[in-house]
Amino acid sequence: MTDKCTVDFEPLGRRARVASGATLLEAARQAGVGLNAVCGGAGTCGTCRVRVVAGKVSPPTEAERELVAEGLRLACQVCVLGDARVDVPPDSITAAQRAQVEGRERTVELDPAARGFDVTLAPSNLDDLRADVTRLREALVQQHDVTLERFDPAALRQLPLLLRENEWRIRIVIKNNELIAVAPPDAPPLGLAVDIGTTKVAAYLVDLANGEALGAAGVMNPQIAYGEDVMARITYGMDGRERAQELQRALASGLDELAGELCAQAGRESGEIVEAVLVGNTCMHHLALGLPADSLGLAPYVAVLSDSYDLKARDLGLSLSPGASVHMLPNIAGFVGADHVAMLLATSIHETDVITVGLDIGTNTEISLAAGGRLLSCSCASGPAFEGAHIHDGMRAAPGAIERVRFVDGRIEYQTIDGAPPVGICGSGILDAVAELRRVSALRANGAMQADGHPRVRGEGRGVEFVLVPAGERDAPRDIVVTRKDVNEIQLAKAAIRAGVEVLLDEAGLEAEQVQQVVVAGAFGTYLDVDSALAIGMFPPLPRERFVQVGNAAGMGAKLALLSRHCRRQAEEIARRVEYVELTTNPRFVGEYTKALMLP
Amino acid sequence: MTDKCTVDFEPLGRRARVASGATLLEAARQAGVGLNAVCGGAGTCGTCRVRVVAGKVSPPTEAERELVAEGLRLACQVCVLGDARVDVPPDSITAAQRAQVEGRERTVELDPAARGFDVTLAPSNLDDLRADVTRLREALVQQHDVTLERFDPAALRQLPLLLRENEWRIRIVIKNNELIAVAPPDAPPLGLAVDIGTTKVAAYLVDLANGEALGAAGVMNPQIAYGEDVMARITYGMDGRERAQELQRALASGLDELAGELCAQAGRESGEIVEAVLVGNTCMHHLALGLPADSLGLAPYVAVLSDSYDLKARDLGLSLSPGASVHMLPNIAGFVGADHVAMLLATSIHETDVITVGLDIGTNTEISLAAGGRLLSCSCASGPAFEGAHIHDGMRAAPGAIERVRFVDGRIEYQTIDGAPPVGICGSGILDAVAELRRVSALRANGAMQADGHPRVRGEGRGVEFVLVPAGERDAPRDIVVTRKDVNEIQLAKAAIRAGVEVLLDEAGLEAEQVQQVVVAGAFGTYLDVDSALAIGMFPPLPRERFVQVGNAAGMGAKLALLSRHCRRQAEEIARRVEYVELTTNPRFVGEYTKALMLP
Repeated sequence: MTDKCTVDFEPLGRRARVASGATLLEAARQAGVGLNAVCGGAGTCGTCRVRVVAGKVSPPTEAERELVAEGLRLACQVCVLGDARVDVPPDSITAAQRAQVEGRERTVELDPAARGFDVTLAPSNLDDLRADVTRLREALVQQHDVTLERFDPAALRQLPLLLRENEWRIRIVIKNNELIAVAPPDAPPLGLAVDIGTTKVAAYLVDLANGEALGAAGVMNPQIAYGEDVMARITYGMDGRERAQELQRALASGLDELAGELCAQAGRESGEIVEAVLVGNTCMHHLALGLPADSLGLAPYVAVLSDSYDLKARDLGLSLSPGASVHMLPNIAGFVGADHVAMLLATSIHETDVITVGLDIGTNTEISLAAGGRLLSCSCASGPAFEGAHIHDGMRAAPGAIERVRFVDGRIEYQTIDGAPPVGICGSGILDAVAELRRVSALRANGAMQADGHPRVRGEGRGVEFVLVPAGERDAPRDIVVTRKDVNEIQLAKAAIRAGVEVLLDEAGLEAEQVQQVVVAGAFGTYLDVDSALAIGMFPPLPRERFVQVGNAAGMGAKLALLSRHCRRQAEEIARRVEYVELTTNPRFVGEYTKALMLP
Repeated sequence: MTDKCTVDFEPLGRRARVASGATLLEAARQAGVGLNAVCGGAGTCGTCRVRVVAGKVSPPTEAERELVAEGLRLACQVCVLGDARVDVPPDSITAAQRAQVEGRERTVELDPAARGFDVTLAPSNLDDLRADVTRLREALVQQHDVTLERFDPAALRQLPLLLRENEWRIRIVIKNNELIAVAPPDAPPLGLAVDIGTTKVAAYLVDLANGEALGAAGVMNPQIAYGEDVMARITYGMDGRERAQELQRALASGLDELAGELCAQAGRESGEIVEAVLVGNTCMHHLALGLPADSLGLAPYVAVLSDSYDLKARDLGLSLSPGASVHMLPNIAGFVGADHVAMLLATSIHETDVITVGLDIGTNTEISLAAGGRLLSCSCASGPAFEGAHIHDGMRAAPGAIERVRFVDGRIEYQTIDGAPPVGICGSGILDAVAELRRVSALRANGAMQADGHPRVRGEGRGVEFVLVPAGERDAPRDIVVTRKDVNEIQLAKAAIRAGVEVLLDEAGLEAEQVQQVVVAGAFGTYLDVDSALAIGMFPPLPRERFVQVGNAAGMGAKLALLSRHCRRQAEEIARRVEYVELTTNPRFVGEYTKALMLP
């Protein structure tokens, strides 16, 4: 029993119980703390820095010599010899947890559109024959000064029995003066915030009574079966009016599944969700609503609907509370949709007074530039390469995906998600690999792979490839390679993003170096290594410290809209203010794009 | 060719072409004029009186001697000898046509809640990237000074393709500032008015662009399978929350069928119906909405909802236009529902300054008393006997049903619907038979049938019965009889109605003779013979001319609400003004009821 030690990781508030002699890295893994460890724990990469605040641990090793003066240790080198408390600097944590720790999430005053009220009715009797609804209306005015104007029929159907089962005291939920749900007294209504990405859908479950986050989950967008990118799906939907409904239903079933999963985890039920806020790019927005997206597929790329929109969840085929409501944040124009509005909302870019570039990187990348009171936005098709698609050994960010790559003294170091045996490369890994290959001159500026550029490069001509992991290494089931075509895919993707940034800067009459802040959002945007992205020229060459990675800001924005009517009004204002820049017809775009294809 | 004569019937505007020598009664049947002919054309009953305005006809017969002085003839006696024009007094026409002819239907200024607008949008282009909805909104303000606030999602889904297929010019339908339908330009939107009776459902198809009636149709209420009267259905629905939905769906499928049938007759489609107005008693109202009606089944008989209510047709499972809306008129209290509001609206009883009793007779009978600015209403369970149910040879009012009975000089005369061979007795026929049996003292005041009261009475004790039609007479397939139990059913029904009238008079401090007008509505109320009803004491003994029969006034009221927003406001006002009198707990009711069981 004396062999077990307790290790607390701050500020994450996670705890592990490990055997005496275990390393802090092992303890961190057990505690679910995503410590970086690019070298896999060999003490060579220096990415697992921590600060031991209290407790008995082993003395510094040779590998830590330079760090000790700063009070830092390498978690892979430190052996736990008793209970310990460890402080983890944000830079040492994997991006997903970093976003959480760094507290980029805005806090807002709780003022949800869907509000719950407990109300008590006087029971009916022979002297008061008024209808249930009439007496409910009166009680609400008297007890909460709230006027009910409308009653969702599905919610209304539940009212009379619930009233009588609960001795005339119930919880009702009201949105825009409409009764949308009834429940036993004190039942806290739930909300669902959903970011519908072209490839992935992320959802967040929230307690609307106190704003507490109850869980987050993600699934692949089920519409992927109908086409990988927005254009493919628009084309599919064009083939007949029924097809748009087919895409809509596919998404709805995915959302229902997500909601069910989140509720099960929280010990709740989908039927308790009274409102959902959905965001997505304009195409995802239209397909989520079952609106034909045909007009988005052809110049002049016009949306059917750009205003914010409220409708019944059942009209989308969603199985939430019977009277549940859905709020769609407004779109901007072209493909710059509600997800980007949500991202701007969550990061407060619309309010900043420093020159800021905001990017939400995904299969479609939206870019905004805030400068001098103006807010310019554009959208570019960066493709699914960063999601691991169209990459020879690409995969999505799942256990065993190589997420970090570094060449150190001729060695190739890499880190897999959850430290699992390597099975493929995800977006951030391929980005690192390209950056490192270029750094050691194994790639030319045009992306051509040099057969003699690195000992691990093999093959010739179009078949040339770089062996990142040979079969068997760390139990890799086969060779994991980066092909010449993989490099080209990354070039196309990063060039689209860089060209978008440059066109916006040009529209605003600014030089890149004037940008004081670059906010990078989206799952991939959060996991990518900014140095690598800078190395391949995806971003303008700015000092590293001007970059900040903020996680799924679109999802956070959806959550804010769920919790705050003020945020919904801000979203409207953002959508109104943005000056949309259409890249496909912009005269500078092609030139910038061609230039950006090169590797610096 | 010279043998054919043209006969015009005024004021109905109907025409027949008959052979010279045919009777006017034959001509009337060919022209679809529902002339009364209780004796079947024998010249004995005197019910087929007409006025020959022009043309050559046969001279008066012996049977017409007394009428000639008044300028009248009997249609069954007059032979057409050349083209003729005939005026038909209202009293000579069957009730259904009479209601039509007498013009009881209020005419209102056309101002429907669902209004169509043709609108032309400027096509989108690279200089105008605004969303379709944004440009539609603007065009509506500019072209019609109308502000759109909401967009039904199902209608919205049809907008973009329809806009592009029709060169940016479309017809849109707006209700309460919400877009509820889109259509090609100039397509006139349709409306559906529905009176949901406990036994029968009547529907009217209307062109909302010009107010024109496009057809009427009726079906049995499919909920009959779950119980004949309201209490049976409430009890069925109580057994579980799902059951109310089952009743709702049964009705919805019946309404869909009616709508389809009406549209097919008019060469239109259900998908063109953009709004429906539904009325019914409170129980039918609740079951139509899928609201649990449990609270209506027990004292204090409280409704869930009494206000007027708007919802989506799809939320009732109706397959009308995808974004179609349904308006439910307000209920009053107890079982006095939206159908009675509609009846008061259609007959203007709420505005009259003469003391008026209004009755809507059905399985449930609603009664109102307008006097001195007050409007008192009650409801009584008159049962389905008047619909032909619970009557030995009862049937609903269909071809072959005996609808009129008169004893003339010892002979028994009767009239069947459409003159078809007799197969049973409908409500008005049984009412006549009871009145005649009492007149000739074959019935005692307590309803007991006297074995020696009439040669056609046979059997004894509980088995005593009156043979109205012996098998074989006019091709009757079997004996058609009136049993002692039939008489009792009629006594129960008429007593409930009379007691209701007396309680209302008492509440208002009035004597029966002060009533200046009695308005009788409902299918049975329109077909019944007022003299017979007076003879059995269903109504207070008032002069015949104070009675007026107005057809399906509830259905007419629903139609008015479809065509006029002003009428909807009037309906609200009626529902607010009515003083509801609960009969089941009224101390006078039982006494009045017991008294009214007697036959005068």
